[in-house]
Amino acid sequence: MNRKESEYYINGVKFGDRYILGKTISLIESELSVDRMLSTEILKELALNRSNSFRIGITGVPGVGKSTFIEAFGEYLISIGKKVAVLAVDPSSEKTGGSILGDKTRMSSLSNNDHAFIRPSPTKNTLGGVASSTRENILLCEAAGYDVIIVETVGVGQSETQVRNMVDFFLLLMLPGAGDELQGIKKGIMEMADGLMINKAEGSNLMIAKQAQSEYKNALHMFPPTESGWIPQVDICSSLEKTGLKDAWDMIMSHNELLSQKDLLLEMRNNQNITWFREQISQSLMSHFFVNENNLELKKELEMEINIGGITPKEALARLLEGIFL
Amino acid sequence: MNRKESEYYINGVKFGDRYILGKTISLIESELSVDRMLSTEILKELALNRSNSFRIGITGVPGVGKSTFIEAFGEYLISIGKKVAVLAVDPSSEKTGGSILGDKTRMSSLSNNDHAFIRPSPTKNTLGGVASSTRENILLCEAAGYDVIIVETVGVGQSETQVRNMVDFFLLLMLPGAGDELQGIKKGIMEMADGLMINKAEGSNLMIAKQAQSEYKNALHMFPPTESGWIPQVDICSSLEKTGLKDAWDMIMSHNELLSQKDLLLEMRNNQNITWFREQISQSLMSHFFVNENNLELKKELEMEINIGGITPKEALARLLEGIFL
Repeated sequence: MNRKESEYYINGVKFGDRYILGKTISLIESELSVDRMLSTEILKELALNRSNSFRIGITGVPGVGKSTFIEAFGEYLISIGKKVAVLAVDPSSEKTGGSILGDKTRMSSLSNNDHAFIRPSPTKNTLGGVASSTRENILLCEAAGYDVIIVETVGVGQSETQVRNMVDFFLLLMLPGAGDELQGIKKGIMEMADGLMINKAEGSNLMIAKQAQSEYKNALHMFPPTESGWIPQVDICSSLEKTGLKDAWDMIMSHNELLSQKDLLLEMRNNQNITWFREQISQSLMSHFFVNENNLELKKELEMEINIGGITPKEALARLLEGIFL
Repeated sequence: MNRKESEYYINGVKFGDRYILGKTISLIESELSVDRMLSTEILKELALNRSNSFRIGITGVPGVGKSTFIEAFGEYLISIGKKVAVLAVDPSSEKTGGSILGDKTRMSSLSNNDHAFIRPSPTKNTLGGVASSTRENILLCEAAGYDVIIVETVGVGQSETQVRNMVDFFLLLMLPGAGDELQGIKKGIMEMADGLMINKAEGSNLMIAKQAQSEYKNALHMFPPTESGWIPQVDICSSLEKTGLKDAWDMIMSHNELLSQKDLLLEMRNNQNITWFREQISQSLMSHFFVNENNLELKKELEMEINIGGITPKEALARLLEGIFL
């Protein structure tokens, strides 16, 4: 390995050079084995778990104003002295027609700010799927001095659970007029949220947003608190008028303080890592198993038999795995 | 294979013989390969997906009165002409000290009723874990003429998701005094429920239960409906005074009607089977992989390294799987 080459990346990231940070992320996302040796070297130096950062997941249905919120919120954070990194998790999605997350120009003002780093959607890779590098990208951004890391997801797909499991705080953006977007939100996501921000609380929407806030507050009190004892908070904001941004930040800070007081922050992050590791072992073994096309073919046939009721799933499982270990 | 032997089971179950039904379930749960051939033969004849049955999952924290409710509810159902089977999913749990579900005498009155069949906890088996046979047991009970199948789970463990994914309706029992048991309920279970019954709505608790009902109703309206458009219902009952049992049944029937109208019932059951099948493939491959003790040892070491921050989960994954497919 070229020691000089890894030092170029390591020093560049430590120095907070945005260009080198971007190049390092691309390297980490690369699947070439020569790159993998180099990334391992770099990550050994840089991937330290720091407890003084804030990792925030942000989700919400299309139309809720995620980009505008992240831009306004990011600028607010910079105004109080933070450095902000924004990572997007979802690949360009068929549903939404493409570039919602891949487009850097969405947050033109934030992306031109020296204290912000915006990284669009990662390229798809096999080992661990779309979000497999995002955990490492978080660590790299932290190593580069970013103290607030925002991980953005579209909120209607499969990636919310993954994102929830790589951040400290999971924020769900909602529209005023409680219930408006309920059909769009996947069941289960509400209960994953540590906080709700009702966006677009401006003009004639302000009263409606306040009403929704109080209804959601009552509703969330009827649901179990998180393990740390946190009850999800609800607040309102306007990304347009730049109001409520401090409230969002206060909410996230109180949550982090609660976790830190109880010594739960690093524990939670470690658990998230272990959970992801274990999930990915089984996912990877499955991918490996189905590289064999006979297995894939048999699986399809068995699924058809299950669907017509010709076989129970347990019997199908036994037949699929017969060859290897029954 | 002894054709006569399989006919003994098949005919016995079809005839609704409770003794033979019990024996058949034991056979299905057996892991001896000679039994497996026989069970396959039997299941081919009996395991048909019938759309005229009701599959109900019931959960709730210890102390909520699950047994008493199931007994009262089961007797109500029999009084209106139904045949009721009760299957328990959880193994005797360490947390609760043992026999909560394994004890047949809990529901002494119901278990003596000719129109009821009660099957305590299955024995643990390897392929697919604790609940792996429960799906087939449901089908067997349906083949034996039981039209309401209740699957009971303790509500504080890992099995709720599994149970939710093998029933048509998932009922969460709650105590009056909303919030009393919130600490005991695992996050996510509320959002899995198709309905809440507030039990022990009797005497001085009645008013509190009604209050809780209205609060939960409001809360659940703020959460996304299920894919079928169903909004979870909330009602009150007293298993002691045998009130509210018809309301519980009406709730479950409306849900089934909605599913049937939209042709979603069989589709949902098929999807449940496929989901279980896929989950079990990866679970089984993982078990198989860790039969090799070197792999298990390496996994433990890597997890320790992840915990001290010496390695990222992605790198750990690559190192664990290096030997097989990288």
